[in-house]
Amino acid sequence: MADVVAELQMNIEKLEKDFEKLKTENEKDKANEVKKELDRLKNKLKDQQKKQKSEKPLSNQEQDSLAKKVTRLGLEFTKEENLSDWYSQVITKAELIEYYDVSGCYVLRPWSYSIWERIKAWFDAEIKKIGFENCYFPMFVSNAALEKEKSHIADFAPEVAWVTKSGTTELAEPIAIRPTSETVMYPSYAKWVQSHRDLPIKLNQWCNVVRWEFKHPQPFLRTREFLWQEGHSAHANYPDAEKEVYYILDLYASVYEDLLAIPVIKGKKTQKEKFAGGDYTTTVEAYVAASGRGIQAATSHHLGQNFSKMFDISFEDPETHEKHFAHQNSWGLTTRSIGIIVMVHGDNKGLVLPPKIASIQVIVITCGVTAQLKEEEKESLMTKCNQLVSTLKKADIRASADLRDNYSPGWKFNHWELKGVPIRIEIGPRDVQKNEMVAVRRDTGEKLTIKFDGATESISALLKTIQEGMFNKAKKELTDNMATCYNFDELCAELERKKIIAAPFCGEIACEDQIKKLSARDAVTEEGGPAMGAKGLCIPFQQPANIKETDKCIGPDCTNKPQFFTIFGRSY
Amino acid sequence: MADVVAELQMNIEKLEKDFEKLKTENEKDKANEVKKELDRLKNKLKDQQKKQKSEKPLSNQEQDSLAKKVTRLGLEFTKEENLSDWYSQVITKAELIEYYDVSGCYVLRPWSYSIWERIKAWFDAEIKKIGFENCYFPMFVSNAALEKEKSHIADFAPEVAWVTKSGTTELAEPIAIRPTSETVMYPSYAKWVQSHRDLPIKLNQWCNVVRWEFKHPQPFLRTREFLWQEGHSAHANYPDAEKEVYYILDLYASVYEDLLAIPVIKGKKTQKEKFAGGDYTTTVEAYVAASGRGIQAATSHHLGQNFSKMFDISFEDPETHEKHFAHQNSWGLTTRSIGIIVMVHGDNKGLVLPPKIASIQVIVITCGVTAQLKEEEKESLMTKCNQLVSTLKKADIRASADLRDNYSPGWKFNHWELKGVPIRIEIGPRDVQKNEMVAVRRDTGEKLTIKFDGATESISALLKTIQEGMFNKAKKELTDNMATCYNFDELCAELERKKIIAAPFCGEIACEDQIKKLSARDAVTEEGGPAMGAKGLCIPFQQPANIKETDKCIGPDCTNKPQFFTIFGRSY
Repeated sequence: MADVVAELQMNIEKLEKDFEKLKTENEKDKANEVKKELDRLKNKLKDQQKKQKSEKPLSNQEQDSLAKKVTRLGLEFTKEENLSDWYSQVITKAELIEYYDVSGCYVLRPWSYSIWERIKAWFDAEIKKIGFENCYFPMFVSNAALEKEKSHIADFAPEVAWVTKSGTTELAEPIAIRPTSETVMYPSYAKWVQSHRDLPIKLNQWCNVVRWEFKHPQPFLRTREFLWQEGHSAHANYPDAEKEVYYILDLYASVYEDLLAIPVIKGKKTQKEKFAGGDYTTTVEAYVAASGRGIQAATSHHLGQNFSKMFDISFEDPETHEKHFAHQNSWGLTTRSIGIIVMVHGDNKGLVLPPKIASIQVIVITCGVTAQLKEEEKESLMTKCNQLVSTLKKADIRASADLRDNYSPGWKFNHWELKGVPIRIEIGPRDVQKNEMVAVRRDTGEKLTIKFDGATESISALLKTIQEGMFNKAKKELTDNMATCYNFDELCAELERKKIIAAPFCGEIACEDQIKKLSARDAVTEEGGPAMGAKGLCIPFQQPANIKETDKCIGPDCTNKPQFFTIFGRSY
Repeated sequence: MADVVAELQMNIEKLEKDFEKLKTENEKDKANEVKKELDRLKNKLKDQQKKQKSEKPLSNQEQDSLAKKVTRLGLEFTKEENLSDWYSQVITKAELIEYYDVSGCYVLRPWSYSIWERIKAWFDAEIKKIGFENCYFPMFVSNAALEKEKSHIADFAPEVAWVTKSGTTELAEPIAIRPTSETVMYPSYAKWVQSHRDLPIKLNQWCNVVRWEFKHPQPFLRTREFLWQEGHSAHANYPDAEKEVYYILDLYASVYEDLLAIPVIKGKKTQKEKFAGGDYTTTVEAYVAASGRGIQAATSHHLGQNFSKMFDISFEDPETHEKHFAHQNSWGLTTRSIGIIVMVHGDNKGLVLPPKIASIQVIVITCGVTAQLKEEEKESLMTKCNQLVSTLKKADIRASADLRDNYSPGWKFNHWELKGVPIRIEIGPRDVQKNEMVAVRRDTGEKLTIKFDGATESISALLKTIQEGMFNKAKKELTDNMATCYNFDELCAELERKKIIAAPFCGEIACEDQIKKLSARDAVTEEGGPAMGAKGLCIPFQQPANIKETDKCIGPDCTNKPQFFTIFGRSY
């Protein structure tokens, strides 16, 4: 608790400095963002301080334990009542994240980084199958390159971090850190493309990018530095480029649905929400039932010829001999995906990991090791556990035994539940005699007795069942929380019910602005700001119905003809 | 050629800006560095312009080909006569590197990045075997954390890049980009270590780091941003830490000797050259015969308790109940390794890749496909090639066929030689009839006839022979160029013969400074500056002899007793 207060105070201090700076520099929008965040933190600090006062003074023993900075097991907040604090506790107690003293930056600990490694391994193999190669471009961009595509830079400019000094020396020209690498990579593409034979170019990189936002940062979900992959291709013709955009989107859907057990909605971004400088953006959108908010999970952009014209990525058409510009795509998937796992699957006992991306799928824990137990019984129990682990490992099941004797079984149960390990195996001396064990599912809490003979098959099947069960549960949550609306008041009402809403929409930016503005309400949310309005999440490929002649655009007072159903919702 | 001039002019312009800035800011040391580089580039520009004038005017056809930016095959410089231009041409023409418009930053193209991926895969698996886990810490460091270990920051401070702006807003406090991550990671280590049970901590990350140097940058060898892995451990006792330092050094030696076919010398860094803030640094040093310079290949540092005291990474000794500080190591291997491959193995036909890290180990090229050839003969030739490739692939040999019909066999031979593919297989219609093929070794040019039956075994054995042959050749170069000296004039003479020299040395920093200063000479080298003096490369574990009572320190006029033989040489 003391730590929480200290951290809050530290953050408030930093933000106050930011705020003063922004005020004197007359940066109203950013100053407002910072102000909101400041108010939120100050309220939180007050709450914490109140709470602390009302707590009984600590006993000596408690003070000792605090002094030793011993982590308390278990969560103090529930997902339903206090999502934001619940999230912070899950990610720290499950050892996914460590907080850091630069605002908006977080440490990815091995427990989360290993999830990223699994996502990476799968996706990397898939894109190599279709001819993509990995490479690495510099993280620094010159101003000249950055500014080449005007609408692109207009969108990113406010968030670009600039290096202006090395040591104590001012640089001759400030240098930007990549917020994304279109402008970093395409000057090289222009050099490499001399004829249609040099196409397609298919490159990908796994790297860090920086977007210095002033909105409320949240580990994984909105961070100033994050990890991602970015694929960048250049094709000789549109059909090849188009095919790839959708192929990649399908791969992203597979990452979420098959690996992470998270259902997504595939669709196109609205004009307002598409990637700046591109022709169109396709997206997979996930849904967080606990907050009722949609969340962009990954995007695949068709850039058209906008960038190739600006950077002169061109070739002579072999037939017409005319100059032709390349058709380009770019697409990215970020470490945000880890945050979505926490938000969608986590429960009041902590993290729940889908088996396919858990570094430990099965944790084996001994029970009933009492002082009365004979040495040989104890030994045969340990042997049994180790045998089981090695048998499972041989079958490519990621199993591990927690045989530490300085922690009780109860402590271990909590610990591994908090960390989200899909299956816990309990083995006691009597189980050894009966040649069986107890398996406990993390997702449902269900207990099953499993025979040692054929354990590999049973456990392997159980992992599959858990993976499917988790997906189906999340799928139901999504389906249950999708509504279709035909007028604006209905939409606002459904929004209050934490739903995401499909509605006929004209597609205009001005109309979407209105919808967002008028669906916001003044009540203060958990995060401290007014409840946000609805954004266009996507125009789903699978339309809930055909637009009828009689349908009207959902925009309040909009008189445009609706073009398609668009999914609206609050979002991250 | 026109491109070279334009690039030179661009770089000169940039450096002049840097220079003006540094002068007005009274940064003498940096200004001098920049001035040297400026002079070098200006000389080079003059040479190029002279050369251009003396060249005949281009024919129409030549002009066409220039206009189309067609890359000329083959190298225009030799390794022996013009190492620096040879290097630039090899790395660009072999498609390892693309130049970039931010000075000191370069694009790693798939052909080089894939080498990094192979090094990474091997090393990553090895450190996971001894309990290391991957993680990711932020690239940004607050000034407060950066400055905690004084001697550490003193060394890095002049090269630290600072972010001071986001968008158009000044940050409240400048934020540094990591030059290395001790100060980024250890505040977290301090939080995590509460008892001896929390040790050891064994973490590694693969990431980019930035060191904004003003010395002459060279792709791979000295760059402002580079990729590396950095391992950071904290142990409860010294023996565990010490054991790890040497274990990791052995892994680094294996990376070089077994994967990259590059012999290295294992040793300890001198007091002058060790890692700032650490207790001692162990190193593997390689040797570039073409320049006669040593090159630091990877380092493994024992940090002692210096950082753990500054950051309070401590625990209570379970027996004495006294406060005890952790014993720490850090170690790193960078993309410089790729540049060492180029320098050590490359020849006047281009890159020569050791089989173990070549993405393509065997390239299959058809010969004798003339207009007279019958369609069925052509088809059976293609079938044969494809069959061979798929047979080799099944045996985990990375084979590929270049069956493009718009390039001649001669062009393809040059192309794949330039890229350093270890074995070229030539197959013509007559070879098909005789059921055989010709294999050409990239390293020696040797031609062998191989039967289709048993081709997998023959080629697999040949790859092994090449790997060993390359190592032995480099090993001989190293051995032939090592001298042992007992007086300073001898040392200087051997230095002129491009040797690295083992000599008795007292180990004092002041003495090493003298050796460096007095072994430099005023003559201008290829790189434009005066020939650099000798640095202490390492104190080799394998000493050439015991220090005798009568031996004197190699330092001119030094009266200290020599402690050990130290290897001196010019270096990168």
